Amino acid sequence: MPSNANAFAAQSPESPLAPFSFERRDPGPRDVAIDILFCGVCHSDLHTARGEWEGTLYPCVPGHEIVGRVTAVGSDVTKFQVGDIAGVGCMVDSCGECPSCREGEEQYCETTGFVGTYNGPDPVLGGHTFGGYSDHIVVDESFVLKVGHQADDLAAVAPLLCAGITTYSPLKHWKVGPGQKVGIVGLGGLGHMGVKIAAAMGADVYVFSTSPNKRDDAKRLGAKDLIVSKDADAMAEHAGSFDFILNTVAASHNLDQFLTLLKRDGTMTLVGVPEEPHPSPSVGNLVFRRRALAGSLIGGIAETQEMLDFCAEHGLTADIEMIDIQDINTAYERMVKSDVKYRFVIDMESLKQAA
Amino acid sequence: MPSNANAFAAQSPESPLAPFSFERRDPGPRDVAIDILFCGVCHSDLHTARGEWEGTLYPCVPGHEIVGRVTAVGSDVTKFQVGDIAGVGCMVDSCGECPSCREGEEQYCETTGFVGTYNGPDPVLGGHTFGGYSDHIVVDESFVLKVGHQADDLAAVAPLLCAGITTYSPLKHWKVGPGQKVGIVGLGGLGHMGVKIAAAMGADVYVFSTSPNKRDDAKRLGAKDLIVSKDADAMAEHAGSFDFILNTVAASHNLDQFLTLLKRDGTMTLVGVPEEPHPSPSVGNLVFRRRALAGSLIGGIAETQEMLDFCAEHGLTADIEMIDIQDINTAYERMVKSDVKYRFVIDMESLKQAA
Repeated sequence: MPSNANAFAAQSPESPLAPFSFERRDPGPRDVAIDILFCGVCHSDLHTARGEWEGTLYPCVPGHEIVGRVTAVGSDVTKFQVGDIAGVGCMVDSCGECPSCREGEEQYCETTGFVGTYNGPDPVLGGHTFGGYSDHIVVDESFVLKVGHQADDLAAVAPLLCAGITTYSPLKHWKVGPGQKVGIVGLGGLGHMGVKIAAAMGADVYVFSTSPNKRDDAKRLGAKDLIVSKDADAMAEHAGSFDFILNTVAASHNLDQFLTLLKRDGTMTLVGVPEEPHPSPSVGNLVFRRRALAGSLIGGIAETQEMLDFCAEHGLTADIEMIDIQDINTAYERMVKSDVKYRFVIDMESLKQAA
Repeated sequence: MPSNANAFAAQSPESPLAPFSFERRDPGPRDVAIDILFCGVCHSDLHTARGEWEGTLYPCVPGHEIVGRVTAVGSDVTKFQVGDIAGVGCMVDSCGECPSCREGEEQYCETTGFVGTYNGPDPVLGGHTFGGYSDHIVVDESFVLKVGHQADDLAAVAPLLCAGITTYSPLKHWKVGPGQKVGIVGLGGLGHMGVKIAAAMGADVYVFSTSPNKRDDAKRLGAKDLIVSKDADAMAEHAGSFDFILNTVAASHNLDQFLTLLKRDGTMTLVGVPEEPHPSPSVGNLVFRRRALAGSLIGGIAETQEMLDFCAEHGLTADIEMIDIQDINTAYERMVKSDVKYRFVIDMESLKQAA
C-alpha cells in the first residue's frame, strides 16, 4: 500500500517551493525504503524547479543528494538492512540492458536514459518521480548506496551523491594521480569537491577562479594555489603545464584560456552545460598539442559507491551550510548569487515542523 | 660549399609560382643529400605560397611530401647510403631536448617548435627553409625516412609523408583496430588516405561526404559505405554508433552532426584548422556520452617511419595525378575547386626541362 510523503514542491515555474504531499510506492521485493535525514541542494534543483531547462513536470519535488536511514527492505534485498545509513543520488533506475548499463555506466543509459531521482518517469506508479525534499523515499536497491562515514558527518556526506561523484568520476576516468598538475575551474559546490578529491588522489591541484579572495579557501581545501583567471600574466605562467583540467563552470565562458594551459595530450573535461554556447574553442589549440575537450556526466552506481568509500577513507565531506526546508526559497536566491560555501544541505527534521 | 638548387617559388602572395634558384648547404657530418624525384602538393603549400596564413616568408618554395634518391651522406650518417630511396616530410629539425622531442613527438616540439621543411628558420644557413618543389634537398638524417615501397610506386608514396602520417598518427593514437566503426569526414587528399589506412588497420570505415557521387570511390578505397552528411535521415541511422571519427575538413562546419554519431567515450579528432571558427560545438553532446573533441598534428619521425613501413607492408599508396612543375599554378586552381583525385604529385624530372 502506498505511503503518504510530506515534501516541498514547486507547483509552477513561478511559484516558490511550498509544502506538498504525495504517495510513495510500497516497497517491492527489491526496494529499500529510506527516511531522509539530509538532502543537499544542487543547482539542478533550482533550474528544474524554476523550469529553466525544458521539460519540468509539476508539481516538482527536487533533491538528489540524499542521505537517510533504512526503514524497510523488500524480500529480495541483500545489501541493506533496517537501520543502515544509505544514500541516493541522481538516478533511481535505468534500463539495465544496454552496453552502458551493463558496464556500470548507468548515467549514460542508451535506451530509455536513466530515471532521474526527480522529474523522471516513475517506473512503478506512473507519473513522474519526486526527489529528496521529502521525508522518505523508496528506491530499487541497485540504486542505493552504502554510507560508511561517521554519524556526525552525514549532513556533509549528502552533497557527495551529486557534487562528489560528478567530480570524482572524470578525475578517475582521466587517471588523475600523484605527480600530476590538475586544474579545477570554478570554486562552487562541484569545484570545492573537485579540489578535495583531486588532492586526495595525490595530484597538485590549482583552482581557477575570477575571485582572488577565494585563495585562502582554495588552499584550505587542498589546492597548491589559486590562479586568477582574469589575470593574463598569471595564466601565462602556467601555459602548457596542466595534465588535466576539470571545468565545473556552467556559464558561457572562454575555453581557450584554459585549453592553452594543458600539456600535450592534456584533456579539459566539462561537467556543466551552459545555457548559451561557449565561444567556439580554437581548433589550433587542440591540434598543436593534441589536446582534447571532453564532457562527463555524474558517474555510475558502482563508481558512486567507490567514491563514497574513497571519501570515507580519506575523511572527505562537503563544506556545507545547513538550512531548514522552510528556508529553501531564500537559499535558492543566495545560490543565484553564489553566496554559499559550498553547498546548502536541508536538515529534513525541519520538515516535521512544517507538517 | 653550398650547391645551387633549381626550384619553383612564389615571390609574393599574388605572384604565381615560377622558376627560382637558391643555395642548399653542403652536407654536414649528419646530413643526407637527396635528389628529389617526386613531391606531393599539399593544401598547406597553396595556403603558404599565397600568404593565406600569417607569416609566409618570400621567396616561398613549398613542398613537404618528398621522395628522392640519396646522392651524398655526411661522415656520421649511419642509416642511409648513396643510392637509397628516402623521404622527407613536414619537418627537417626540432630542438631535440624538450619532452615532446625526447618522446619522439617532434611535431609538438615545445621550445622552438619544429623547423618546417619550408618557411621555417633555416638552422644552418640562416634565412628560411625551402621545400620540395626543387631538384634536391639536404636534411639531417634524423628527419629522413626510409622508403620500402616498390620502385614503381614512388610517386604515389610522396603524399604519405604528409597526408599519410597526418591520418595514420591519430588513427594509431586513438587505437583504431578490428571490430571498430570508424568515420572519415571528407574524401580529399587526407581523407582518402585515412580510409585506406583505417581499413588496413582492420576497422569498418565509413566516409562522410556532402557528395553522394563519391560513394563508389569511397568503397573502392576500402570504406563499407559513404554517408551523405547533408542527409539527416542517413546520419540519424548511425547515431551513437562510431568509436572514432577522423575529421579532415578544414572549412568551418557543424561539428555536432558528427559528435552525435559517436558512441559513449568516442572521440572525434580534427586535423584541419579552419580559417573561420566552427560553430561552437554543443557541450551537451560531449557531457551526455562522455565524448571528446580533439586535435592532432602530423606525426613524429619514428611514427612516420612506422607508417611508411605499414603502408609498404599493406601495399598502400596515395591515389595521385602526376603533373609537371610547369603546371603547378593550374593544379592550385583545381585544388581550390577540389578537382583532384586525390593528390597532385610533381614529377621533378620536369624541372630539368624548365632549367
